[in-house]
Amino acid sequence: MLSKNQIKLISSLQQKKYRFANQLFFAEGVKVIQELVKSNFELEHLYTTKEDFKEIAPNKITLISENELNKISALSTPNTCLAVFKIPSESKINESGLILALDSIRDPGNLGTILRLCDWFGIQQLICSKETVDIYNPKVVQATMGSITRVNVNYVDLVSFLEKTKLPVFGTFMDSDNIYKAALPQEGIIVMGNEANGISESIEKLVTKRITIPRFGELQITESLNVATATAIILSEFRRKG
Amino acid sequence: MLSKNQIKLISSLQQKKYRFANQLFFAEGVKVIQELVKSNFELEHLYTTKEDFKEIAPNKITLISENELNKISALSTPNTCLAVFKIPSESKINESGLILALDSIRDPGNLGTILRLCDWFGIQQLICSKETVDIYNPKVVQATMGSITRVNVNYVDLVSFLEKTKLPVFGTFMDSDNIYKAALPQEGIIVMGNEANGISESIEKLVTKRITIPRFGELQITESLNVATATAIILSEFRRKG
Repeated sequence: MLSKNQIKLISSLQQKKYRFANQLFFAEGVKVIQELVKSNFELEHLYTTKEDFKEIAPNKITLISENELNKISALSTPNTCLAVFKIPSESKINESGLILALDSIRDPGNLGTILRLCDWFGIQQLICSKETVDIYNPKVVQATMGSITRVNVNYVDLVSFLEKTKLPVFGTFMDSDNIYKAALPQEGIIVMGNEANGISESIEKLVTKRITIPRFGELQITESLNVATATAIILSEFRRKG
Repeated sequence: MLSKNQIKLISSLQQKKYRFANQLFFAEGVKVIQELVKSNFELEHLYTTKEDFKEIAPNKITLISENELNKISALSTPNTCLAVFKIPSESKINESGLILALDSIRDPGNLGTILRLCDWFGIQQLICSKETVDIYNPKVVQATMGSITRVNVNYVDLVSFLEKTKLPVFGTFMDSDNIYKAALPQEGIIVMGNEANGISESIEKLVTKRITIPRFGELQITESLNVATATAIILSEFRRKG
């Protein structure tokens, strides 16, 4: 049974300001929740329509009805469970190896997909500009499919971070070095730009190596790749040459 | 001014059965509509809140209010225009060069992103199994960003199509030849499988070349890439070796 206050609190966590104020976020679905529980995330409370979480202390579980789950879920087709977790404090940035940096990625699905890519390609550090969508947005958590537990994510002032780094800074532009032919080291920062505007001017100035994904279509249209698919191709190229 | 019947018809086009019955679909946003108008798509009617389509015959334009646009739009934040087009008859399949085949892709965003990738990598023929989401679904049309005008799409019985083809059939599996090291020809069919279940058994039997995208993450987790990002990496590899 859910109280009105519980429903109100959980629903409020769909908004960043309430996640920040309460230092809580939520995840939905058995797989993602199990991965979060197994890792270092601290479970606040689990709400489920089924008794299928034997590993969780009974005082942290509330059995609810499907109707109640509908009220707190952010999904159009709710799963069987929703869990509220504490937002962990940010770890120190690990400035070694390949690092991915995001310059104002706004779409939660894109950020989630990019986190899955980091996980696949062994990128352990993701740096997000402060304008990038919040990693604890329910749609991001959903799209990460659990990768959120394996990638270190920090939100920083990206300009000052890149001004200070000693690592090479890679950025993708339309007319630069063909990525397939370029030398790609296994240490550096790869910057991906905003969905609509690409890499911002202040960040572009700090890029030390400009690269291009060649277009193979016959028509010369000023069309770009989706940022998540571009990230996939770039990480694949870096790792292939590793 | 929109009549009740017009609102009813346009709203019904969000569902496949009504698109099929009326042989109509709709697109939203200036850029996508302009690309469709410029290409071979036949405009049925344009509804817009702004007078910014000088190239379209006045008898095909209705000026509507934002409130009316809200009623017919499939977007949570409607654009300034929505256009209804006739569904063109399917062209003949062009069985040469590199062809992408989709085995039950269900997510409209994934299909739209994959169409953009085809456009970028010069894949002119996309074959979809009958279970794949409809290309004229408004969310697909939106996600293609106009690529729908440059890629030939056919819906077929994928098993019988692959049984008859003389081209090599590529499929991605977990433990096969490393795609970075494999010889990849510029003629063949690349099959991408369903989001949850991968390539179906009946299709797997018809795959003649099995390939794998290697995982670089340290942990051995039975996690997969999103189908659109996997398609990006595979098309990039094929074209790089072309």
